[in-house]
Amino acid sequence: MIKLNENYNKLPGNYLFTEIGRQVNAYQQANPDKRIIRLGIGDVTKPLTGKVISSLKEVVLDLEKNVHGYGPEQGYDFLRNKIAENDFRSKGVNIADDEIFVSTGAKEDTANFQELFSSDIKIAVPDPVYPVYVDSNVMAGRGGVYKGGRYTDFVYLECNQENNFIPELPKQPVDLIYLCFPNNPTGQVATKDELKKWVDYARANKALILFDAAYEAFIREDNIPHSIFEIEGARECAVEFRSLSKTAGFTGTRLSYTIIPKELVVYDNDGKAYELHKLWLRRQTTKFNGTAYLIQKGAEVVFTPEGKAEVDATINYYLENARIIKEGITKLGISSTGGINSPYVWLKTPANLSSWDFFHKLLNEVQVVGTPGAGFGLCGEGYFRLSAFGEKSNVEEAIDRLVKLKF
Amino acid sequence: MIKLNENYNKLPGNYLFTEIGRQVNAYQQANPDKRIIRLGIGDVTKPLTGKVISSLKEVVLDLEKNVHGYGPEQGYDFLRNKIAENDFRSKGVNIADDEIFVSTGAKEDTANFQELFSSDIKIAVPDPVYPVYVDSNVMAGRGGVYKGGRYTDFVYLECNQENNFIPELPKQPVDLIYLCFPNNPTGQVATKDELKKWVDYARANKALILFDAAYEAFIREDNIPHSIFEIEGARECAVEFRSLSKTAGFTGTRLSYTIIPKELVVYDNDGKAYELHKLWLRRQTTKFNGTAYLIQKGAEVVFTPEGKAEVDATINYYLENARIIKEGITKLGISSTGGINSPYVWLKTPANLSSWDFFHKLLNEVQVVGTPGAGFGLCGEGYFRLSAFGEKSNVEEAIDRLVKLKF
Repeated sequence: MIKLNENYNKLPGNYLFTEIGRQVNAYQQANPDKRIIRLGIGDVTKPLTGKVISSLKEVVLDLEKNVHGYGPEQGYDFLRNKIAENDFRSKGVNIADDEIFVSTGAKEDTANFQELFSSDIKIAVPDPVYPVYVDSNVMAGRGGVYKGGRYTDFVYLECNQENNFIPELPKQPVDLIYLCFPNNPTGQVATKDELKKWVDYARANKALILFDAAYEAFIREDNIPHSIFEIEGARECAVEFRSLSKTAGFTGTRLSYTIIPKELVVYDNDGKAYELHKLWLRRQTTKFNGTAYLIQKGAEVVFTPEGKAEVDATINYYLENARIIKEGITKLGISSTGGINSPYVWLKTPANLSSWDFFHKLLNEVQVVGTPGAGFGLCGEGYFRLSAFGEKSNVEEAIDRLVKLKF
Repeated sequence: MIKLNENYNKLPGNYLFTEIGRQVNAYQQANPDKRIIRLGIGDVTKPLTGKVISSLKEVVLDLEKNVHGYGPEQGYDFLRNKIAENDFRSKGVNIADDEIFVSTGAKEDTANFQELFSSDIKIAVPDPVYPVYVDSNVMAGRGGVYKGGRYTDFVYLECNQENNFIPELPKQPVDLIYLCFPNNPTGQVATKDELKKWVDYARANKALILFDAAYEAFIREDNIPHSIFEIEGARECAVEFRSLSKTAGFTGTRLSYTIIPKELVVYDNDGKAYELHKLWLRRQTTKFNGTAYLIQKGAEVVFTPEGKAEVDATINYYLENARIIKEGITKLGISSTGGINSPYVWLKTPANLSSWDFFHKLLNEVQVVGTPGAGFGLCGEGYFRLSAFGEKSNVEEAIDRLVKLKF
């Protein structure tokens, strides 16, 4: 008899963004004349940049004549080199070309990475958190029981107004730590000193940090590290995930990369060490057949001076939106974090509304879609995420509409 | 302490094709003047067809102006509809649009699908076998111990000259059955009667069949089913995997699709049934962010009459290569299967050479690369796979070179 992975039954309801999509679609169907402004899911609204388009045009002409079949599962050398050089070495961060693994998405890689580890390791996740870290570990049986909005076997790193949304070190030993800065959903960033604390903890405890840097390109302040590898010792205890989704507009084009230093080891029950780099290579060569050549070529130009200038311009556009949102809600007396080195503004819901009540109020009264903080964890209750991905005119209108909310 | 998934230690050596690539590269470096003909890995040698290229050109122009961001994880409706209509409904096979899940590769989907099941189910795999079915289950802890070339916990469905490479039903109960027709690596096909036997078995035993139909487009004989869903009852017991890799030349462009009928259920320990369709949707929405819009648009035209005609022409080209290989080796007195409804010719190694000895002999003496049968399992020992993906002139030259082999 074919039996279910019963861990799936421990997942409550739908994937967050699927559920929001369902509710928004239902509202639109019931109210076809209403114009909804979506500042919910973190999807970009600017098309691919000119350099990427030019490159794609060239590659299609190449593909007309030439075969580019199965590529290396870990990505083409031309792209791995460009990434390592531009994102890291040119900034004084020591990363080798073959420590870069190209993939189709940071969602995929952050979800799949836990496969490399024993099922009995202790997981630490931020709260609020990008749901993929949690759900992928629950599916793998590491969650324990879901009770009162939390899994009994996870250690939750609480982020709230009291600690300025920077979690404290766990009080009990943990083995795998998910961190994300600039943070999704809170928009908060971490200084070098704050990250150093985590690196020191991980090294002292033989723990591993999975560092999600999908939003690093939004950092504009000088003292904020873009990579965990700017921190001394991180090569011994951290993996970093990056993506072109939010930077070069690849949400629907799909390209990400994961950085695995060769120093990293994991241990068997006898304490023998194994290279993590080799394990991920084995995983990828067995279960993945590489990112499309076409898309890797399109991505390559993002790492040229012109490509980087275009990305910067796009991000500045979104950051201006973030500024408008933050300024607008501040005027309404709503407090928030993020929105400076991040496309996300994380606001405290007014009138002590619950996250979902505020979601429904926004949708029903002013047709603005955001993301209920509670969808990201218990600590997200009473908060709400607005995304700066949108047309400036829509963002401005959304803020104008918010003024009309009645409490 | 961060601990390894110790199942990875049960995997012997490298992934087969990575290992072959390594050996071929080493030979080429040591012998830079030799021209190697590669009939090893099943990679296509014809570029994307004209219709696909035209579509890609159009989409790039569209992407220049318009944003196509995160798409549905299960694929765009425009493509799911085309697939269901053209591959199935137009041929009298009842498959609904939303039973199609678009993905980036049949390797990915066949590797990931086992995640949906309990770790203690009994797995049946063909021998010889596409290594991904085996390795992905070993990584998930279902293999037991690797001993004498086999895993103690798998049931091996032996395919050999005696049974004409069509396996018999297992003698002990199994829960999950991997089948692949036209087969990789043997090139063998199964008749409706033969598949009916498996469908009946699966229904009677509440087992599930994972049917890999990546090579269905190579079928030219009338009495051979292209889909397991041509068999009565299969909607209750089978999932089918298809791919554009070997048909429309998408090996480096990455698009596949998986068909999951809504009747399919899996059971918990109490025998309660759960819909498999919903489980895969949950898996995909949590761990996958969809196939690139660009590539889905490129794939869409494969399912138009002109697109299908182009694919047919390409496949006829490869089938002519297969015929040349089969005829050539038959003249040399080498027996084989496949090569008629399949791009693969599976030959008995001459002079009782082992698979790897024959591989090295071919590489060293005549610079032809094939795939050692032993890499596909114990029953592959003494066999060798030649692939018809190649330029006709190269295939002809490879056959000419084979004549020069000395035994």
